[in-house]
Amino acid sequence: MIESIEASPVYPIANPKSIALFGASNNVTSMGTSLLDSVLDLGFEGEIYPIHPKENRVQNLKAYRSVLDLPNAPDLALIVLPTRIVSEAMDACGRKGIRHAIVISGGFKEVGGEGINLEKELVAVANKYGMRFLGPNCIGVANPRHKLNTTFMAFQGAPGFIGMASQSGSFVTQMFSYLSDYALGFSTAFSVGNEANIDIVDCMEYLGACPNTRVIALYIEGIRRGRAFVETARSIVPKKPIVALYVGGSEAGSRAGLSHTGALAGPDRLYEGIFRQSGIIRARSVMEMFDICWMLGSVPRTKGRRVVIQTHSGGPGVEAADACGRAGLELPSLSPETIKRLSPFIPRTGSISNPVDFTFGKNLIDYFSEIPKALLDEKNADILLFYFFMPSRRLERMMKQVGLPPDQITEKATKLVDAYSESIMRLFENHDKPFVGYTFQNLKDPLVRILIERGIPIFPGPQRAARAIEAAYRYTRLQGKILAAVSQEAGVGQS
Amino acid sequence: MIESIEASPVYPIANPKSIALFGASNNVTSMGTSLLDSVLDLGFEGEIYPIHPKENRVQNLKAYRSVLDLPNAPDLALIVLPTRIVSEAMDACGRKGIRHAIVISGGFKEVGGEGINLEKELVAVANKYGMRFLGPNCIGVANPRHKLNTTFMAFQGAPGFIGMASQSGSFVTQMFSYLSDYALGFSTAFSVGNEANIDIVDCMEYLGACPNTRVIALYIEGIRRGRAFVETARSIVPKKPIVALYVGGSEAGSRAGLSHTGALAGPDRLYEGIFRQSGIIRARSVMEMFDICWMLGSVPRTKGRRVVIQTHSGGPGVEAADACGRAGLELPSLSPETIKRLSPFIPRTGSISNPVDFTFGKNLIDYFSEIPKALLDEKNADILLFYFFMPSRRLERMMKQVGLPPDQITEKATKLVDAYSESIMRLFENHDKPFVGYTFQNLKDPLVRILIERGIPIFPGPQRAARAIEAAYRYTRLQGKILAAVSQEAGVGQS
Repeated sequence: MIESIEASPVYPIANPKSIALFGASNNVTSMGTSLLDSVLDLGFEGEIYPIHPKENRVQNLKAYRSVLDLPNAPDLALIVLPTRIVSEAMDACGRKGIRHAIVISGGFKEVGGEGINLEKELVAVANKYGMRFLGPNCIGVANPRHKLNTTFMAFQGAPGFIGMASQSGSFVTQMFSYLSDYALGFSTAFSVGNEANIDIVDCMEYLGACPNTRVIALYIEGIRRGRAFVETARSIVPKKPIVALYVGGSEAGSRAGLSHTGALAGPDRLYEGIFRQSGIIRARSVMEMFDICWMLGSVPRTKGRRVVIQTHSGGPGVEAADACGRAGLELPSLSPETIKRLSPFIPRTGSISNPVDFTFGKNLIDYFSEIPKALLDEKNADILLFYFFMPSRRLERMMKQVGLPPDQITEKATKLVDAYSESIMRLFENHDKPFVGYTFQNLKDPLVRILIERGIPIFPGPQRAARAIEAAYRYTRLQGKILAAVSQEAGVGQS
Repeated sequence: MIESIEASPVYPIANPKSIALFGASNNVTSMGTSLLDSVLDLGFEGEIYPIHPKENRVQNLKAYRSVLDLPNAPDLALIVLPTRIVSEAMDACGRKGIRHAIVISGGFKEVGGEGINLEKELVAVANKYGMRFLGPNCIGVANPRHKLNTTFMAFQGAPGFIGMASQSGSFVTQMFSYLSDYALGFSTAFSVGNEANIDIVDCMEYLGACPNTRVIALYIEGIRRGRAFVETARSIVPKKPIVALYVGGSEAGSRAGLSHTGALAGPDRLYEGIFRQSGIIRARSVMEMFDICWMLGSVPRTKGRRVVIQTHSGGPGVEAADACGRAGLELPSLSPETIKRLSPFIPRTGSISNPVDFTFGKNLIDYFSEIPKALLDEKNADILLFYFFMPSRRLERMMKQVGLPPDQITEKATKLVDAYSESIMRLFENHDKPFVGYTFQNLKDPLVRILIERGIPIFPGPQRAARAIEAAYRYTRLQGKILAAVSQEAGVGQS
């Protein structure tokens, strides 16, 4: 376990003040130029020194013929060059005094043959100078708070609380817009590539110490340092959750992974054991991994798995109950106190059981205030699962019929959404029980959008919500087990 | 099996030329008024006769004190009245000569006690006149092609190819906007309520005969006429697929269903058997049900389950392979002919195996033309699963850097999307093998949107795609079995 985040070899790679960039040119179709463009697009605030053998200026920046010509040694070298000249560039960086690098270039171990030797040579050069580097065959780092994006994929998404270390660069770059749709983002995301020097364990350790990271996501095709992996995870899990996706367990996934990163996947059960021992929550897909991160990074820890469901529509309530049951969650009966508290608000056609079904209550505001309040206070339940559906067109038509002019309809609709969202936010912020939403509506629906932007997880469909809740409960148990084991190892609590 | 769709008792209910409406008033908050509003909002083209004891006009339509005062007998009565006066209104309809009704009102069998008697009385009145009716305790019918929407939820979504019969009204009304997001819609959707007269089997039979329905979706909390259900389904499945969601099988789902519609759910295995015997494909969630409908209504029948995956990014390719493997699909090796055909188009960093990984090929148009063409011709594969990701911001930044003015960037970006989508559409339309997409991008992404609007299923994430493909293959097998059984029963093919 590192003392502080600055002690991590990954720190200067994720937070450089200055960058020497090899491979950018005035040819816009080159990878290196795309990469420089990404760095500029996100507004990196440090110095950027393009190194180019011929050009005086690259994309309006002063260029240098050699890294040795630079006025000082930058924190980081970013290398996107043809495979055969990467080691040479690395050596020049070493001589200049640069101690950290990201090698984007591919053509090393992953292609076999001569590539294996080229990678050995690269490692030897780095070792000669005590350099640490990420890659090769990776897309680098995205640290939006530091305005750093070394991937070739330009983006301007907001920073978030998910720290990621991935053996696939695509699951960093191709998730930028996906996460934005959910009002989520990366704290810092690493593509680790061939892991010739810095590996997924180093990145996990960094993210464990990163104050902006509330939850860690790992995409794994194969783990190389098994023991270090387990030990590092176990030191992090008492403080923050780790969610992992391992796809090598099925035969099809394993074969595809071999041709992708050359990772030799182990049997599914072996990895299952590693994750359990590490206290890591396993996800079954990339989308589920981010669902679990959303849940764990947004709501308080759940103490149990007893879910109470609130709905105003029978079918969606029944489906949520079914989804919870199938995910291994419990649906407790309501206590007499709660039933008494709810009865003034639920019409005769509704149902005061679990799910609580509001049906067509007179005052829709009750649905967003008194009812969920009573359910968050319910002593028999650990979590509230809440159904969102705003019949916007119906409400607008009704207002039109009472003769409201169009501008007042818009104003009134906005006011309603504001009142509902404020009410929900007050409950969310003042209770230590998880409040989780589900909906079949688009996440751009006004009420849903406001709430997810303010930090409430609202899942598309009850199945995704139920599985995320189950995973959150799994974390509570895993965390407890590891804390118990740690205190036992420390010689306390052995009674 | 009915001779023609017009022979179905459901036909006049889904296709009325004139409607007598009980319960609408000049009070905009009443259910009946919302319902009238829905009918008007979608632009119903037939006559509407509001029946109101006091008003001369209701929502600008001439109102009648009694249904007996109407100039003629409308095709359909739509009843949204307090429970205790529903039978009386029904009786008046019978006397007038109306032979079809939808009873929206609740408070009947589903609430128990006196409600049970009220429902018996209602059935007796209908039988007296030979009337057929949908409900009570339902939200009626949406038939967008006929511009009919009797639900209280106004909508203007486009018609589609999914026919639905549902024991939850919410899964009709609250899916309007959900389906629009996927460029899908209902052909006709029925909420069957308490099924006192017309039931889910009648609606299924109607949808089986409906020329606009390519696939039937059923939401089931409990089946009452088991034998008729199986026989009707078996007569439809040779022509079109039926997809069902049954949530009563888990204990939690069963208990919630009981309080919702009063349906007594059977054990999961019993229903599993009924569905298998009927040739019905079972879905595990509402979203999965519509995914399977999307697949089956959009692509040609798949002959087998051998999937070839095309990607330009390693991680998404590996995850798709894993998802296919876990869904029980096969990933065949490519034939030598296909490998030879592909080799000019795949760069050295890519991979000509399954998944086929384009990585960073020079000509992106090959990704949308020559490569999928070769894969659709692959004799070892039955289905092509294709990864969609357009790095729009990156492309736009590149164009900006070569000095293109903003309007030309927009124009060029549109042209690129048009070229790619045209190329894909040509392949889609000229091959008899299923072409299925997956993406992590928002379905509003320009390329994805164009293609889904033109009828290509592009699933959010590879798991949903893989499960839909597996379900389509299940249909091929179920259909084959039922056709074989039918011809055996008919005394042919017994060799």
